[in-house]
This record gives sequence, C-alpha cells and structure tokens, in this order.
Amino acid sequence: MKPVKVGICGLGTVGSGSFNILRENAEEITRRVGRSIEIEQVGARRDNPSADTSATNVTRNIFDVVNNPEIDIVIELIGGTTIAKELVLQAIENQKHVVTANKALIAEHGNEIFAKAQEKGVMVAFEAAVAGGIPIIKTVREGLSANKIDWLAGIINGTGNFIMTEMSDKGRAFDDVLKEAQALGYAEADPTFDVEGIDAAHKLTILASIAFGIPLQFDRVYTEGISQITEKDVSFSNQLGYSIKHLGIARRTAKGVELRVHPTLVSKKQLLANVNGVMNAVMVKGDAVGPTLTYGAGAGALATGSSVVADIIDVARTLTADPDNRVPHLAFQANALSDLEVLDIDEVECGFFLNMTIQDRAGVLANITQILSTNGISIESLIQQEKGVSDSVPLVVMTHTVAEKNMNAAIAKIEALPDVIGKIQRIRVEALI
Amino acid sequence: MKPVKVGICGLGTVGSGSFNILRENAEEITRRVGRSIEIEQVGARRDNPSADTSATNVTRNIFDVVNNPEIDIVIELIGGTTIAKELVLQAIENQKHVVTANKALIAEHGNEIFAKAQEKGVMVAFEAAVAGGIPIIKTVREGLSANKIDWLAGIINGTGNFIMTEMSDKGRAFDDVLKEAQALGYAEADPTFDVEGIDAAHKLTILASIAFGIPLQFDRVYTEGISQITEKDVSFSNQLGYSIKHLGIARRTAKGVELRVHPTLVSKKQLLANVNGVMNAVMVKGDAVGPTLTYGAGAGALATGSSVVADIIDVARTLTADPDNRVPHLAFQANALSDLEVLDIDEVECGFFLNMTIQDRAGVLANITQILSTNGISIESLIQQEKGVSDSVPLVVMTHTVAEKNMNAAIAKIEALPDVIGKIQRIRVEALI
Repeated sequence: MKPVKVGICGLGTVGSGSFNILRENAEEITRRVGRSIEIEQVGARRDNPSADTSATNVTRNIFDVVNNPEIDIVIELIGGTTIAKELVLQAIENQKHVVTANKALIAEHGNEIFAKAQEKGVMVAFEAAVAGGIPIIKTVREGLSANKIDWLAGIINGTGNFIMTEMSDKGRAFDDVLKEAQALGYAEADPTFDVEGIDAAHKLTILASIAFGIPLQFDRVYTEGISQITEKDVSFSNQLGYSIKHLGIARRTAKGVELRVHPTLVSKKQLLANVNGVMNAVMVKGDAVGPTLTYGAGAGALATGSSVVADIIDVARTLTADPDNRVPHLAFQANALSDLEVLDIDEVECGFFLNMTIQDRAGVLANITQILSTNGISIESLIQQEKGVSDSVPLVVMTHTVAEKNMNAAIAKIEALPDVIGKIQRIRVEALI
Repeated sequence: MKPVKVGICGLGTVGSGSFNILRENAEEITRRVGRSIEIEQVGARRDNPSADTSATNVTRNIFDVVNNPEIDIVIELIGGTTIAKELVLQAIENQKHVVTANKALIAEHGNEIFAKAQEKGVMVAFEAAVAGGIPIIKTVREGLSANKIDWLAGIINGTGNFIMTEMSDKGRAFDDVLKEAQALGYAEADPTFDVEGIDAAHKLTILASIAFGIPLQFDRVYTEGISQITEKDVSFSNQLGYSIKHLGIARRTAKGVELRVHPTLVSKKQLLANVNGVMNAVMVKGDAVGPTLTYGAGAGALATGSSVVADIIDVARTLTADPDNRVPHLAFQANALSDLEVLDIDEVECGFFLNMTIQDRAGVLANITQILSTNGISIESLIQQEKGVSDSVPLVVMTHTVAEKNMNAAIAKIEALPDVIGKIQRIRVEALI
C-alpha cells in the first residue's frame, strides 16, 4: 500500500514529540499499519532543538501545510482557538483529515468543526486532547461501546494533581507547592488555566459528550479550582480516610446530566485516590462493565505524542472505509445526539465535607446538627477537636448525599449562628461506586 | 444502513450476558453504530433462565448458526478447544466474521485460525478473551499503537486475585480461601486452571503477541501457581511494603522475550498492588507513553459481554472496509510478525524474595550472604526474627535483580548449608518501572 503523508503544524512540546515518535518508531509503525507514515511537511514559526528537521520540508507558514496537495492528514498542534480553528476548518475544506491535541478548540468549537467534517466526509481525531497518553477517548468511544455510561470521574489535570499530592503527602501549603510546580515547568506563570479547573473543564466537556452522546457544552460545566484548599482540609480528610483530588465528573441522572470540575474527597480505598503526582486517571462506570479505571501520563512530549500518532494510525486505517461506517466523532451518530439537559449545580447531589471553626460552647453542636437535620442532611462522620488555648475549635462534618441547594441553605443558616466563626469550607465527596 | 445480523453460539454466562446487552442496550447501540444489530439466531444445547429467548430463533445445533446464510457475524461462546475450533473454522470457511471470548482457543490455535481468516478476508475478534470487560486488547493494539511496548504485567485471573487479597488482608491460609472461592462460584471444583496459572498463561500468550508482534506461543510460557504461597510469605511481604500478586508478565529484552506467570511481590506504592478481590488490571509500558494501567472486572456475564458486544460493533463498523486496512488480528501485519526468541526461565532477570528457616547460630547469616555475593546477588533488605522458644528462626532476604540461573545456583548452595532447614521459598519481585 502507498505511504500515508502527514503534515505537522506546530513544533512545540507535542509537535516535536509526535515528530520524533513517527521517526524513531517508523519501522514498528509500518509493521503495524502495513504502509509507512511519512512526514511530508512541517509548519512551524521556529525550529525546536528537540526535533531534527534537517531532512524535512519545513515552512514558516502553517497554511502551506493545509494547502499542500500531497498531504492526507493535517496534524494541528499549534494550540489556541483562533488560528487553530481557521487552520482546521481550512484543512477540512481541502478534504484533509485532521488530528489534533487541542482540547480548548474541540471543547469550544467542536460542534461546528465536526459538522463541517461530516459534510466533507473527513475525520477529525482528538485522542491527545484528553489525558495525554491515556487512550481514554478510544476506551469510552469504542472499548465500552456496548454500555450505557452511567458516570465518569477523572484526574485530568496533572498540575493540579501534583499540587494536591504534595499537599497531602507532605502537609505543604497550596502557594508553596504552586511555586515549585512553576519552577519545575508543570505550571504556567499564569496558573489559572490549570488550578482553577478550566483545562479540566475542557477535557470533561469532551468526555461527557462521547460518554452520553450529547453536544459539546463547555459553557455549561460548573468549575471550581483548588486554590482555596488548605492544609487543614487535607489533614482532616486524611484522618477520615480520604484524599482530596481535583476531579472532572460527568453523571447521567434521571433529571439530566451533571458536568462539574471541583475538589473532591475520594476514599483512599479507591485506586483513584492513589493516583499521585502529575499522573492522570479516568474512572468510567458502564451499565454492563461496571467501574473501570485507566491510568497514565497526562502530559509530556512523548506521552501526548503517543496519542497523536495512534490517531494518525487510526485515520490511516480507515482512509478507504465508507464514511458512514466510521466511529462517529462524538461516539454517537451526529443525527442521534441527545438533548439531555445539563443540570444546574444547585440540582447536583453528593456528600459534603464541611470544615468550620466554632466557639466551643454548650449547645453549638446541637444547633448545627439540628440545622443539618431540618434540611434533610444526615451526618456520616464528625471530627471535633479538643479545646486548645483559645475558645475557638475546628469542627469537621462529613454528610451523606444531599442536593447542593439543600446544603447551601443549611450552610447559610449555620454560618449565621453566633458561635460559628467565619465562612464554612465546603468540599464535595464522591463514593464513585 | 441495513441491520447487522449476528448468531450467538453458546448461552452460558457470557452468552446470556451478551444476549441481554444486545437486547437491553439496543437503542443506545443503534445510536452509536447508525444501524441496528439483530440477533438472528441462537445456538445452544439448553435454555438459560437468565436470557429470555422466547422471541428468538433458537437451535440446538450450533452448526446451524454457522451455516445460516442470513448471519454476518458468528459469536462463539461455547468454550473449549475442540468443537469451538471446528465451529470457528467453519464460520470462517463460510465467509463469516467471528467474535469469541475463548482464551484457550486463541492462545492454542490462534495462529491457524488467523491465517485462515486472513485468507478468507474475515475478522476474528477476541477482546473478551483477556481480562473480561477491560478493553485491553484494543488498548494495546490501537490505543498504544505508536509505541514500542517494553513490557506488560497484569492481574488477569480474578479467582487468583481474590485468594491473594484475602490471604493478604485477613492473614488467611490458601486452602481456606480456596474453599470460600469455590463456595462463592469464583473457583471451579477443579481449581487447577485458575490457581496454577494456566488460565493466566492463555491470556498472557495473547497479550504478548499483540504487544510485540510475535506468533502465539502458549507452550513457551513459564507457569507457576499460587498454591504454595503461605501466610508467612504474605505477612513478611507486607512487612517489607509489598503485596504478593499472581501476575502474567511479558517483557522484551535485548536477548529475547520473557513470558511468565508466577506469584510476584509488587510494591504497595504501585496501583497494581492495590487491585483487590476479583478485579483485574493490566500495566503496559510503552516507550513513548511510559507506564499505563487499565482496571476493571475480569469476569462476569455483563462485564465479559461488554467486550463481546464492543467487538461486534467494531466488526460491524469495518464490514465495508478494505481488509488490508483493518487492524491486524495480532496488531502487526501477518507477514511482519517477528521471530524474537522466547527466553527460557533460567535467563529471566528479576529480584527475589527468599523465605527460609535457619538454625540461629553464629556465622550462618555470614555464610548465606557470602553465597549470594559470590553469585553476584546483592541484598536489598532482610528480616531476621529474634530467637523464640526454638533454635530455628525465619530469615527473609530480598535481593536486587539477578538472572534466575544465578539465583538457582545460590539457592542450591544455601539449602546445602547444615544450618538451613528444609527448602527455601522463593518468590520473584518486580519493580514495574
């Protein structure tokens, strides 16, 4: 069979990783695919010392790649949502297949891009957009295709997980670990994207669509970061047998779909609670298979390149297939996407970990438990520390499942009690069973 | 698109699970595939109360299914390697695609079956043959296709893992837990297949082939069961921070391929050591992606049925594709399989946990460490218990990596020492990094 020719746009971390895998594993890949995959052209504003392009046709204008008639598959690795969108749409217009690692592009503009790809009969593959080297898109879209997916929950931002792991293992403060993550190159100078959960929300948007067959709805994801988590929260959670993880969670309920990114207490008995450092992992619960977990590197040149190149191989294999028989972009046929409503966070139900400071006086605990009970909230466990030098002591309450709005009502009333000092820290708890 | 018609042969646990998934998730599956998947016929010697076949064409002769001209895909779920082989070969001869959950059939006769399927241009899919509901075949063959796979290691027998977990968590004896496993239906009346590692060796044979692109070589797998593991082994391992797991391990080295199933000490810091009960998990280390792990239910009607039905969907999707462009049965093109040698167990290198009983006399430890050192074996850690009422005390030694033949030579010499009582229990140790 004749070689498949690809053009790589962008030669940053993922671009150079993908370039190097295609070169170094060329023989192994040809043994798999039965044809060679050749890098016809690279488009990049500047060279990257990690990728030796001395024998490659390099252009400074990435649109040369998209308009190169020799190229079958365009690999979009420039990032961002403006030029990248233009580039991908032009590639589709030119009847080229596209492979991308761009989570923001797919989460925010995927509906438009896939509609155009469908119209033109080309594929847009995006395994590398979620959880780096973990083949989670393929797992959900193909490996678990027999299932109705009930829910999924993942550690899908390595920077956030590195921070939470350091805080948990070493009792360090958020700001302290963030500085180290920046020094190590895990976190950007402006860490908002990672620590406030925007990156995870992009990935969750994509996972939820392929799990439930709903359109991409990034603007409907409830997003809460980890910057407010304190050493005390971590230490009390540990005492209760839980780790705090920054999770992206999507669940299908009778009322609609939950889409949320927030710090979450997970029992240490769960594998997910033991996923540490910059590693990623995604649990998926299907109605037939039960709970599953997939774990691996969520970032890095070669790990993310692994997913880019796997997508290239997949696309190469289906070049001759009837487009109607391909795996649909969002796992379900475009005309079969469901209009399941995305629930408001107020409607979401989970357990809660409440960390508060109270005046240690008679009756205060009774008042608090009374308010919880009145709002239909039952207590699973409780830590009340002995009085120290001051009259104010911490009180930690872990509750059973309750609707967010009920918890909000209860918290407002508890915070209004004269013996409750300041705001209550509230972190959601998930059983993941 | 017109419906895809399947015929199910065998209506036992996996047969009824697959039947029920195809019926209960029919709407979701049609939304995914864009065409319906219809059960045209079921062949089974007897009915199964778990599957309501009252509206289905049922035959008592499974070969009716294979010869039914309406059927596109034959689902072989009868098990065994005699009639099942005949059935699958006849289906292929009749130009029908095949989906099977039969690990023994694929491990022992896969080379012949795939050659015939290749010749006839049909697919034989076998996701359900390894690790039940975990899509590990797809993960290795497609999700990680960009990688040279360095090694894989898996808990791929749920019965064995249930036994090891109970022994570890509760200090129970092997025979005691085995009896419970039999009562619970996890283990057969003759448990040899599970506890002596034959079932795991079948699965490992398949995994190694698709990881390295080598022919199926079941007869080359070194297999050691868990029936000789004692409560003391488990308890000393725990003290050293390790769990004993029954692993299937395949590794590509400069000298050849290692293929082995045996009890293995795994650090508790590894997720794999925390996979408990009947659950399965497989670690795969690729040169680009690094270490990955996939976890889920390794058995059960619906979990295994999840993989059977996912295979049916995959086959349905590629019915119109050029056969040359399909994912090859063993991940690599049939004419590109490698003749990498499978190493003899003597050549395998790993760490060792040695559990022995010694007379607590001056000089005995010096003699033992001298023998280890002479054979190029360095000690990683050591537990020497204080003398009790008797003169004989346990001595546990954990070593760094060494070739098996060197360890055998050292063990023979140590066992010959007058102060070493009886045989030395030896369990392999893997770092899995």
